[in-house]
Order: sequence, then C-alpha cells, then structure tokens
Amino acid sequence: MGYNGQMTETTDTTPEWFSRDELEAVRGRLPILYVDAVPVRTDDSGAVTHVGLLLRVAPDGSISRALVSGRVLYHERIRDALLRHLEKDLGPMALPQIPVSPQPFTIAEYFPTPGVTKFHDPRQHAVSLAYVVPVAGDCQPRQDALDLVWFSVEEAASPEVQAEMTGGQGVLLRQALAYVGQLP
Amino acid sequence: MGYNGQMTETTDTTPEWFSRDELEAVRGRLPILYVDAVPVRTDDSGAVTHVGLLLRVAPDGSISRALVSGRVLYHERIRDALLRHLEKDLGPMALPQIPVSPQPFTIAEYFPTPGVTKFHDPRQHAVSLAYVVPVAGDCQPRQDALDLVWFSVEEAASPEVQAEMTGGQGVLLRQALAYVGQLP
Amino acid sequence: MGYNGQMTETTDTTPEWFSRDELEAVRGRLPILYVDAVPVRTDDSGAVTHVGLLLRVAPDGSISRALVSGRVLYHERIRDALLRHLEKDLGPMALPQIPVSPQPFTIAEYFPTPGVTKFHDPRQHAVSLAYVVPVAGDCQPRQDALDLVWFSVEEAASPEVQAEMTGGQGVLLRQALAYVGQLP
Amino acid sequence: MGYNGQMTETTDTTPEWFSRDELEAVRGRLPILYVDAVPVRTDDSGAVTHVGLLLRVAPDGSISRALVSGRVLYHERIRDALLRHLEKDLGPMALPQIPVSPQPFTIAEYFPTPGVTKFHDPRQHAVSLAYVVPVAGDCQPRQDALDLVWFSVEEAASPEVQAEMTGGQGVLLRQALAYVGQLP
Repeated sequence: MGYNGQMTETTDTTPEWFSRDELEAVRGRLPILYVDAVPVRTDDSGAVTHVGLLLRVAPDGSISRALVSGRVLYHERIRDALLRHLEKDLGPMALPQIPVSPQPFTIAEYFPTPGVTKFHDPRQHAVSLAYVVPVAGDCQPRQDALDLVWFSVEEAASPEVQAEMTGGQGVLLRQALAYVGQLP
Repeated sequence: MGYNGQMTETTDTTPEWFSRDELEAVRGRLPILYVDAVPVRTDDSGAVTHVGLLLRVAPDGSISRALVSGRVLYHERIRDALLRHLEKDLGPMALPQIPVSPQPFTIAEYFPTPGVTKFHDPRQHAVSLAYVVPVAGDCQPRQDALDLVWFSVEEAASPEVQAEMTGGQGVLLRQALAYVGQLP
Repeated sequence: MGYNGQMTETTDTTPEWFSRDELEAVRGRLPILYVDAVPVRTDDSGAVTHVGLLLRVAPDGSISRALVSGRVLYHERIRDALLRHLEKDLGPMALPQIPVSPQPFTIAEYFPTPGVTKFHDPRQHAVSLAYVVPVAGDCQPRQDALDLVWFSVEEAASPEVQAEMTGGQGVLLRQALAYVGQLP
Repeated sequence: MGYNGQMTETTDTTPEWFSRDELEAVRGRLPILYVDAVPVRTDDSGAVTHVGLLLRVAPDGSISRALVSGRVLYHERIRDALLRHLEKDLGPMALPQIPVSPQPFTIAEYFPTPGVTKFHDPRQHAVSLAYVVPVAGDCQPRQDALDLVWFSVEEAASPEVQAEMTGGQGVLLRQALAYVGQLP
C-alpha cells in the first residue's frame, strides 16, 4: 500500500501488464486488487504464538512495520499472488502454508480519502483480501531495507507496535488476532 | 460477468471513472473487482428457503439465469456496490439485508482462459467477492430483459437450473447453498 | 454463562431435558453447548452502528453488561436456540435477523479454570457458537433485572464498557467488532 | 457419530469424565459436542488436491467411508480435540496442520430424528464443529478396522463415494469442497 512506497511496487515487463506510468493513470480510476498476509508462527495445536512484521527504516531514521502486501496481477490466482509476495518478502525458505480456502478473514478497503474506512492509501483505492498465513520455515527478508521481526500476540497488539504501523494495518493486524482467537 | 454482455455494464460519466473504451483497454491488463450477490428468501429462523435468479432470454430464445453481479467502482465501498447492484437488478423495494461483515463466503476468480479456475469470463480477469443476501421486500426487476424467479434450494441445485447458468455461476450458487447449510 | 447466575437458566420440564440437579451433575463432566449473540443495529448499507448490551444491577449496586447468551437444548437447532434466547432477552418485537449461515464468527470456549482460554465460567466448561445478529425492531427486555442499552461501536470497545463485562465477553464483543470491520 | 459404532468411542477413566453407562444416559438429554475434520492434501499453493476418508468394512462385507470425527471431552480445547482425533485415526506421523482460527467452515447438527437437518445420528443429538485440515505427513491408521484412502476432489464428490458415506457426512464433505473452492 502507500506505506510501502516504491519498494514493493511490482514492475511488470510482460506485455499484458502495465508500465509504471500506465498503472499510475489507472490507479486514479479503478479499485486495484491487493492481498494482505499476516505471517504467524503456531504451536503444535495450531494456536498462534507470534506475528511477523516487516521492518523498514526511513531515511530520517523513523521506523515503520508492515504486513506482507502487494498487488494481484492480471491472470494471477489469489493463492499464487499470496505465495509470490510471501516469497518476495520472507525469502524462498519460509515455507508459508497458504490457506486451503479462498475465504479471506476480512476485506480491507484502502481509500485515497482518509476516514471513509479504517484503511488509507494516498496513492490509490486498493481492495485487499486479507489472510493469516502460518510460516514454518526460515525467513530471510530479501529486500534491502526490510527486516522481519516476530512479536508475541500481546506485543503485536500493543500501542507501541500499533503506532509503528500505517495506513490502518494496525487495525488489520488486530482483526487478524481476533480471527485467530488471540485478541488481548 | 461475460454472460451479462453489455446489459449490466455501468456507463460512468463521472470524470474519475472510465469510458467504455478505456475500460476495455484496462480489462486485458488488470484484474477487475466485482461483487456477486445470491439473493435469498429466509424463514423466521433465518434458514434459506428460496434462491432468486435473474432470467434473460437471448434473441435466439435461449434462456440463461444469473446471480446479481457487477463491478465495484472507484471510491465505492463494497457494501455500497452490493446495494447498488441489488437495487438495479431487483428494484427499489427489494429491501436487501447487506451482510454486517465484509467477509465474503468465497472469492470467485473469473479467468479469461477457461479451466484455470471454475469461473470463466471471456472479456476479462474478474475477481468477485461473493455474498448471500436475504431479500425481504418486493422484487421488481428494472432491466428490460430481466426477470427474477425464486427457486427452492433443491430446484436451484438441480441439473436443469445449473445448465442454464454460465461462466461458473452454477458452481458459485452451489457454494452459496453449502455455506448456508442447504446443499442437497 | 456464570455471570448470568440463575437468571438465564432454562428450567426444563420436558422429560428429555434435565432437572436443575441433574444438569449440575453433568456440568462437571461434559462441555455444555451454548450460543452467544451480539445484537447490533445497522444502517441501510449493513454497516454496524450500535451494539446492544444487556444491563444487570447486582444487589450491591454493581453494574455488569452481557451479550445474549444461553444453552442449546436437546433436539433444538442452533438457529432455534438463537431465536429463543434473543426473544427471551429482547422481547417478541425485536425482529432479529438470524444469520443465513451456521458458520459462527468464532467459538468461545469458556473454561471453569481461568487462563486456559480468554473465556471463563466458574460453573462449567461451556463451548459457545458466537453470532452477530442485526435487530431491526423494538427491544423490550422481559427479564426483571435486565435492561438493554445501545452503544456506538466506539463506546462498546471502550475500557469503561469492557470493564463492565465479565467472563471474557468483552473480548468476544471486540472479536465481533473485528468481524464486522468496526474494531476501533 | 453413529456410523462409528463403538470403535471410536472414547472410554474415559478420569473421574471427571463419564463411564459408558453415564454417557448413554446423558446422550438422550443434552446435545453432545463433536468435531469433524476433513483431512486433505494440498499443493504448494495451498489448493486441495486430495481428500482422505477412513474406510471401514462391516462384518457383512459392506464398505463405509467416514471423516475423522469424535467427541470433545470435558476441559479439552477444540484444537486439542482435533489433534487427538486426527492422531488417533491417522497415526502419530500425520503432521496435521490444525487451523489457526477457531472459526469452523460449518456446524453439522446431527439429530437422532432423521430429516430435521441433513445430518443424522441415531444415538444422540451431536453438534459438530467442522474443519478442513491439511495433512502433510505419513498416515498410518491405527485402529484395526480402519484404513485411509486418498481421493481426488472429483472422486470424493462422486455418487459412488457419496453413497458409501453415512449420517450426512457425504453432504459435509461436499460442503468442505465448496469451502475450499473445489466443488465439482
């Protein structure tokens, strides 16, 4: 979303996809389809113990934390988009367990106008299908500026971590905790 | 979806929205966000008794049946898109009960290439959030060629009705029946 | 649950059901099936605007607030149990819209031992299927000590109201708000 | 459920639990809480490819197929009951991925009276929380009379396999396929 800046922008070279300029033109006129994934660690009984958040340090030193998030491409299935963004952000050894059902736990509607919903993206109207994804393997964030930090569910819902999330993703994270029965 | 042809196409005159030509150009390059609504009648305990399907007669006399379906516009909330399409197809007195949760019962991914998923739309890659919507009022379809017929859940899942649905909407209807606990 | 004391206890005279003594004996040895309903008011687009909570004043003047909650009886369908408890607590003119799907938004597991889950009932191990139920009509609580108060979603999630809820129902209420996309 | 006969009956020796005689007495008077699990194999993208069904041969040579199913015990969490029954029926190396969310895909209400719902258990009124559970490891059914057979989703929904399932579990299986987007 907007909080990701240019870093998570997929530059597509396949003819059917958009150049960056074309995408910008479309963004002001059509809702853009996204997926949001909340990476979690679980115990043997499937109970969520930790939530993984991407870390980014801005040039001014300020820290922000983000879910795994990105666009769904033309002719790409939702589950393939989830897998692609999780591999991009968590590395090839993360072994994410993509949900068996396409039913998301919620829909996050990011509006360019603040206040219409709880989600905001100044660049675009993005509609994101949100999933909780257990991650069993080793995570090695591959993007330069990104790190991945695992928080306990209490930490993830704390005011400190919430304050470091932007665009409404703090709310989305707490919705995910509610869905897995772990809202503090 | 494709089965609706030009009839359900929203012609948007607001500047932020697309002309038909522009939309056609985008359709080959970006997944387009849709909503699908399954109108139902319920008894006092909330159990689904009937499913409403739109009827269309083609120039050659062939009959097809369809769910309420349509695009989500720029800067439009999912629930407003649902309400708009239900009012357009069922009339202003239908009194649809839009679901309280944004969680759809499934996501229908209509691909332009047949066979990628169970859903097909030759015009575009459409990703549709699917909801079951109880309708308590009087339905008066407002589009010329459309009528609305209420089927029992057994009839709705029958081979005869299924054969009259296109683009995979027969599967989507049965998924809805499964969701409400009424799959025969 | 435990917070309801004897007030919401169903005294069953039908032979297949339990006397109070028998029920007490069973309660220490079997999980007891419950339903929890979160009554809500919605706007025309289905968005939740208010949450209804039952009020109870204890002999010492202390106030507690509760969801609509109660046992599922032998040979009773879930949706009939929901309807029965809603009518009992909100009156015959409440016009609750029982959900079309049996899929609850969560399962609340009330344990007699505190801390096993977020839910606690000193009397029993109760497993409760939780639903959000829009209520369109007039609510007239019929039990002597009960009143119903409508809170905005912000008020319902506030520390003040949360502090007046017991047994973990404050958490369950916030899970319901997350489910309907209204967690503050 | 009833189709399992005495084989899957948990004989509990802990004082808080019931003797078989006591359980029989309770069964005619209280809904009994169950879990149903649909074991599945998935590909890397999380799409379900196969469904596992338990096989049983009756003394008369007739074959029946069943989901993993069993009672929730006093003071046992849902996810622990799921894990226990999956290990009991699939062996200790099955590595089931218990869902992160307590939200079941449906509730199956098995009534002793046929026809009240789609589910029937002559022994009792059982209310079952139903989950789809990916199984990544080796399955070695441990009960004498049980084998586990993996079916493609098409086979699982076929009239032949459906005819070998009892008590409504064929419907429950197809509801699971609908939930994972694989209903043929």
